[in-house]
Amino acid sequence: MRRLKPIGIIHTPYKKDGEAPHQAYKSKEVGEIEVFKEHEEGLKDIEGFSHLIILYMFHKSVKRSVKKEHYLNSFGLLVKPYLDDTPRGLFATRSPNRPNPIGLTIVELLERKGNILKVRGIDMLDGTPLLDIKPYVPKFDQKNNVKIGWLEGKV
Amino acid sequence: MRRLKPIGIIHTPYKKDGEAPHQAYKSKEVGEIEVFKEHEEGLKDIEGFSHLIILYMFHKSVKRSVKKEHYLNSFGLLVKPYLDDTPRGLFATRSPNRPNPIGLTIVELLERKGNILKVRGIDMLDGTPLLDIKPYVPKFDQKNNVKIGWLEGKV
Repeated sequence: MRRLKPIGIIHTPYKKDGEAPHQAYKSKEVGEIEVFKEHEEGLKDIEGFSHLIILYMFHKSVKRSVKKEHYLNSFGLLVKPYLDDTPRGLFATRSPNRPNPIGLTIVELLERKGNILKVRGIDMLDGTPLLDIKPYVPKFDQKNNVKIGWLEGKV
Repeated sequence: MRRLKPIGIIHTPYKKDGEAPHQAYKSKEVGEIEVFKEHEEGLKDIEGFSHLIILYMFHKSVKRSVKKEHYLNSFGLLVKPYLDDTPRGLFATRSPNRPNPIGLTIVELLERKGNILKVRGIDMLDGTPLLDIKPYVPKFDQKNNVKIGWLEGKV
């Protein structure tokens, strides 16, 4: 299968594991997405979008798994989320320790300067490798009548 | 960098490139997400969620790039979207032909039977490799006062 190939680096105020918020919606922090110069042309027209879907590598997630109490079997398929005391299925959580360590956060685009995007609402560690940017489009990405299972009342 | 590792296969009615809808929000089609048995335990608690974020490989996107008229430079950083006549920056589009060929669709979960998830609102080709499933949580994933740039009036 294809290898993941960073197309940039995300600069954030969160320098160490533990400093980053568990969920971006609680973050009003501003950071910078640096898209490598070779991909800058792909940013044309992005200024028109107020929100962007950012895909990135959970590059520190292997280290996190060392906190064994959070991962209850050897395959990491059951996890104890920070919001709950019950072990939950990995795919019913947003835990960073996943078979494919791809993170997803929707950020607000404040400004573009060349290959640098100033964004608000970030939750990733400083130095996180960027994998993709997609425009956030409510017609595609917004759903109604949503049920959120074990997270009900917790977020 | 890490290799992408399929954790399942997505079964859909779209057998050939060209049959799949350009955007899932127009699709009411039902398909099945088959999570490989080795990852089934990670599906615990998923039944509580009505909507799921599906990440998958655009495994046919390299073939698509042969349609040269849609990719206006050798790096594929400018594309002519099907909704528009103007070349747009790749990262301001949802084009499948991306440096990291990761697709994202939010589907409605209808039913779970063991390692099979019956879902509505799919737009990927039959046989698409599954990379990740994340629960869709409005508090994290829903944004207000959204501007959609060149897509305004087109979706």
